[in-house]
Amino acid sequence: MRNFFDKDFTVGVLGGGQLGRMLIEAAGPLNVRLAVLDPSASAPCSEVAHTFTSGDFADFDAVVNFGKEKDVLTVEIEHVSVPALYALQAEGIKVYPRPQLLEIVQDKGLQKLFFEQHQIPTARFALFNNGQEAVAAFGAQCVLKLRKGGYDGRGVQVVKNNDTAQNLFDAPVVAEEAVQIDKELSVIVSRNEQGECAVFPSVEMLFNPEANLVELLFSPAQISEALEHEARTLALKTAAAFELTGIMAVEMFLTKSGQLMVNEVAPRPHNSGHHTIEANITSQYQQHLRAILNLPPGDTSLRCPAAMINVLGEKGHNGPVLYQGIDKVLEYSGAYIHLYGKSDTKPYRKMGHITALGDTVGAAVQKAKQAGEQLKVVSAIHK
Amino acid sequence: MRNFFDKDFTVGVLGGGQLGRMLIEAAGPLNVRLAVLDPSASAPCSEVAHTFTSGDFADFDAVVNFGKEKDVLTVEIEHVSVPALYALQAEGIKVYPRPQLLEIVQDKGLQKLFFEQHQIPTARFALFNNGQEAVAAFGAQCVLKLRKGGYDGRGVQVVKNNDTAQNLFDAPVVAEEAVQIDKELSVIVSRNEQGECAVFPSVEMLFNPEANLVELLFSPAQISEALEHEARTLALKTAAAFELTGIMAVEMFLTKSGQLMVNEVAPRPHNSGHHTIEANITSQYQQHLRAILNLPPGDTSLRCPAAMINVLGEKGHNGPVLYQGIDKVLEYSGAYIHLYGKSDTKPYRKMGHITALGDTVGAAVQKAKQAGEQLKVVSAIHK
Repeated sequence: MRNFFDKDFTVGVLGGGQLGRMLIEAAGPLNVRLAVLDPSASAPCSEVAHTFTSGDFADFDAVVNFGKEKDVLTVEIEHVSVPALYALQAEGIKVYPRPQLLEIVQDKGLQKLFFEQHQIPTARFALFNNGQEAVAAFGAQCVLKLRKGGYDGRGVQVVKNNDTAQNLFDAPVVAEEAVQIDKELSVIVSRNEQGECAVFPSVEMLFNPEANLVELLFSPAQISEALEHEARTLALKTAAAFELTGIMAVEMFLTKSGQLMVNEVAPRPHNSGHHTIEANITSQYQQHLRAILNLPPGDTSLRCPAAMINVLGEKGHNGPVLYQGIDKVLEYSGAYIHLYGKSDTKPYRKMGHITALGDTVGAAVQKAKQAGEQLKVVSAIHK
Repeated sequence: MRNFFDKDFTVGVLGGGQLGRMLIEAAGPLNVRLAVLDPSASAPCSEVAHTFTSGDFADFDAVVNFGKEKDVLTVEIEHVSVPALYALQAEGIKVYPRPQLLEIVQDKGLQKLFFEQHQIPTARFALFNNGQEAVAAFGAQCVLKLRKGGYDGRGVQVVKNNDTAQNLFDAPVVAEEAVQIDKELSVIVSRNEQGECAVFPSVEMLFNPEANLVELLFSPAQISEALEHEARTLALKTAAAFELTGIMAVEMFLTKSGQLMVNEVAPRPHNSGHHTIEANITSQYQQHLRAILNLPPGDTSLRCPAAMINVLGEKGHNGPVLYQGIDKVLEYSGAYIHLYGKSDTKPYRKMGHITALGDTVGAAVQKAKQAGEQLKVVSAIHK
């Protein structure tokens, strides 16, 4: 067995987006080498990975060929070839998160059934072959989610009544009761090979309804101590049920009646943990590495309240990216810019983020918003 | 003029050691590309630089060839070809720190004369052709420093009396009065193209006399507010006198009579600023990038007290490196390991560092020492 600091020890990462890029940034000080597989030759990881392989992480052969010489294999996106991961696991390669877990998480129907089976509270649901059947059977007031392939709000339809029930998904869906949501929360939990767990303080997420993307989030969530405890306990229970090795973001609804329900999980570094780079004693990225390398979990405590705002491509701009106002953002004390190195922008594309620290959550949120307004992601080519 | 975030904008760095490596780590989130020149193909930057060129940064042609396509050129070591930097500057390449400054700093004799000329307090000194002449003329109780080529304590002789005055340097030296030192301090200051300055809180350094290396340092220094103010003012004055663009560590003695004297300066990221990565709102590495890219200086405030301990190669170990106890260090909350990725260890070689945060300087120092004791840098090959 090679040690992780040995010269030839390599962690393979399926997916080369910003999450992989920040994982690489966390791996540097520990001298861990990350090799990345991504179909896009200009992916955010392409210029910073120890080695970068152009290839489709959803393709069996590409994943097997990429993974077979690695010491540990992990993901920064769920939509990878699970059969390839099973094959690699059978050959003795450590695959974290385990393929069994990814198989469940990839299918939002299996994910919901898993929650049900493990008494993890979640919104009432049923599975259907397509949206029409769902609305007919479940009622014309529901949330439809494509069972497979959704990402970042793509693959979700909110049906309010029969008038909005048009152009429904023509593929297998989960139909969910439209829960009365007070807050959306995320709790990130880590679990290493030997089962040692740690849980990050809860994060509260505010969505941009137009982009159906998290617009801004902050930590700690503005909830009671009792709810904070309940949320962390639920996240730990969820990770244990999945027999997680790695980290997992457990996204939850806090309903208007004060109940926590798990919405969905992501077994990888997550948008709701970007702020941990500056705000927490241990970042989610280092925590993920610690978990998959079977190192002790780090202290997850917040050093101070923090807010994170996604830097999205401006509406009406498609093409080679230009940034405006970086210098202005850098004038804010305790605001941290992270650009993902994407060569092209498009409307609402996640091009970077800004984390703002503050003495209070309110101060951090205000700073994140103000700093965020200074930075525009545009293109020389307007459309 | 290209912008620093443009795809082809490249900062060239002369030197590929750990300081360059941490500069690369700071450049990632800003999406700044760093190209590195170093003679060693296995230098710490070799695997992480955007492009890495094997070549001697002290060689005129190597530096000119490396630098001519870069947008900005900087250094992580002083001992570079200054004539090459003059030639590149004449061709319109931005060279920060300026070659004029590097030329002075490279020669400890010129550096001392510069201090004298600009009324920067420094220990009494004189210049000699060699150590024998120095001891004969200056007295057998002095500190001799090679004018050129010294680094990390190499190139310094402490002469206490005629008995120790043996094997003296046979090259041009500065002879300095052996000052009665109460504390050794470092103050890092930054200055951008348009002259905007910022100064970091002072750092107090403890030396390992055997290795003649900084063993442990902490910030803030345990000095009065008045002295802290005086130290920062002196650092700013020094940077302004040098017309610095970039960052500069101003190393000072606090004498037993309470006087501050500048010992020497380093116009680049410095060992005494490693802790700023976790401990300060802005790190010295990002601050250097901000200065040379003419961005506004960041807030230098400490987020909390911090201590830094160098991780040195064990005595008696030479050869391919092995680390012992990384997992134990990772159990300390708020202790951060930075390994430099050097393939071979040797006694006292700087192989990494650990920064420890604490509620007080005392707590941070204790944690750094305890965590440091857990980590051993050894080799399979004992000598």
